[in-house]
Amino acid sequence: MIAFVYTNLNEAYRSQLRQQLPEAVEPIFRNELSAEQYQPAFRSADIVLGNPPADWWTNPPVKLQYWQLDSAGFDGYQGVQVKAQVANMGDYFAWPCAETIVAGILAHYRHIDELAVLQSQRQWSGSAVRAKLGLLRRKQVIILGSGAIGQAVRQMLLGFDCSVRLLARTDPAAELHSVDELKAALPATDLVVSTLPGSAKGLFSAELIGAMKPGSVFANVGRGSTVDEPALIAALQTGQLGGAVLDVTATEPLPTDSPFWTLPNVVLTQHTAGGQPNEDAGKVDLFLRNLSRFLDGLPLENAVELGKGY
Amino acid sequence: MIAFVYTNLNEAYRSQLRQQLPEAVEPIFRNELSAEQYQPAFRSADIVLGNPPADWWTNPPVKLQYWQLDSAGFDGYQGVQVKAQVANMGDYFAWPCAETIVAGILAHYRHIDELAVLQSQRQWSGSAVRAKLGLLRRKQVIILGSGAIGQAVRQMLLGFDCSVRLLARTDPAAELHSVDELKAALPATDLVVSTLPGSAKGLFSAELIGAMKPGSVFANVGRGSTVDEPALIAALQTGQLGGAVLDVTATEPLPTDSPFWTLPNVVLTQHTAGGQPNEDAGKVDLFLRNLSRFLDGLPLENAVELGKGY
Repeated sequence: MIAFVYTNLNEAYRSQLRQQLPEAVEPIFRNELSAEQYQPAFRSADIVLGNPPADWWTNPPVKLQYWQLDSAGFDGYQGVQVKAQVANMGDYFAWPCAETIVAGILAHYRHIDELAVLQSQRQWSGSAVRAKLGLLRRKQVIILGSGAIGQAVRQMLLGFDCSVRLLARTDPAAELHSVDELKAALPATDLVVSTLPGSAKGLFSAELIGAMKPGSVFANVGRGSTVDEPALIAALQTGQLGGAVLDVTATEPLPTDSPFWTLPNVVLTQHTAGGQPNEDAGKVDLFLRNLSRFLDGLPLENAVELGKGY
Repeated sequence: MIAFVYTNLNEAYRSQLRQQLPEAVEPIFRNELSAEQYQPAFRSADIVLGNPPADWWTNPPVKLQYWQLDSAGFDGYQGVQVKAQVANMGDYFAWPCAETIVAGILAHYRHIDELAVLQSQRQWSGSAVRAKLGLLRRKQVIILGSGAIGQAVRQMLLGFDCSVRLLARTDPAAELHSVDELKAALPATDLVVSTLPGSAKGLFSAELIGAMKPGSVFANVGRGSTVDEPALIAALQTGQLGGAVLDVTATEPLPTDSPFWTLPNVVLTQHTAGGQPNEDAGKVDLFLRNLSRFLDGLPLENAVELGKGY
């Protein structure tokens, strides 16, 4: 069987895979091929690791049996149809995502971003910055989504004496269950943290943004497509919102002419939130575990259905 | 009685004081005077609010009875002798200090400072940054000092599943009580957060810095004078330390030629850590409360002895 490895693994991980893959599985690494060899190798695959471009999947590998995504989200593959078993990375990125969005939120209140730019200019302006600082303490927070990211963000924010409610349509442990309940709660909410997946496209609408408390903050570590970005930009421009912390945007990389680059009080973390030490090690480990389960006829860890578009 | 207000209060707070001070107390605001009027007004004072320069105190006001510092620290007044009652701001800045140092620590692990500089250049480099990210989760932490800042930092870090120990010589609730115990613990410690006051001058010595775990991080929200800065700089330059988060330095403003400006993995927060919304309101409130206590012959809130040099 041929395993096409689209994930951009370094020599050490490629070597690990060569040693640890069962004899029956021959790996082909994209980053050892020239560009014109990519698609033939892809199409020959029984197994795929990684996230090849969506347009490759209009003509999927005919022998494909197991596809291991190296991401949690797979909203980029809506409409892709494969008969193979598919798994994603599950909660692997959840804690790092939570750390980055909370780091960005704290950076907003404590102006760490402004201080970093001043530092890069060797400019000491502490007292001017100090007069502008806010506090995270005791903020009223709503987290959109009750998955692993939302749970981790809640745990962190409780350490700052915040009052935290989760929104999730069907999770009985969440405090809010509908867009109507959310809208009613927003005027008394200081901070909204979205962890929504791509399947919640457009959920955080202009109407909801308009219902947010003056001076409040919107943070997004879910998907940019879940937010009405023009409405968000307008609310930041008018000063209705006090700021935004965005790991994700509808278009990534963010276009050079996007107002998000320069709007006051916007912190951009450039879709780094899932990053963690030895990130690829976790991908290789799950791939090897799931390959073993696949070969043994066991259900995959983090099995997903593409049509569900998480 | 004359109250000389050195604190740089805006018109609203000056107006509040004019209305709320007892009739017997006449306020003189420094920022309504010309420079040559400062010292005569200071020397005429029965009461002082704020932190006039240390050299003014070689010739203190002869009638001075109550001096309300507008800071927590007063190590700048070592050697100053006054017969007046003196009070500081107590724990007023503790929680904001804790938020800024934790914000800086998270910025270090999640590279928020680097992302902020990239944002100021409209440069999208997320994947390059992502590969360098660390995590605060489950770090082994020692906090130097068990006062209100240290307690608040501990509470915040527990939300990140850190293991936290406090060092305080005489506090039975602290886990570590001596420099020897600290030195023995450092090789297994990922993060040291200093909240030490100026009276602990030089405590975090070259020897202790040398004992720190390779790749570990030093954060300081106490006083710059408590650290051997040349040793800290050397440890950052050699890469023994993974980074530093400094709200305070021995010299402030930080000299333009200080290596801290440009050393890799150093986050400078420019002594902003105590900043909070309506910071001066809290100063005015405490001053009015303590003035009332002083006039009633009651002991001051946050009374301090200058000689102790907190």
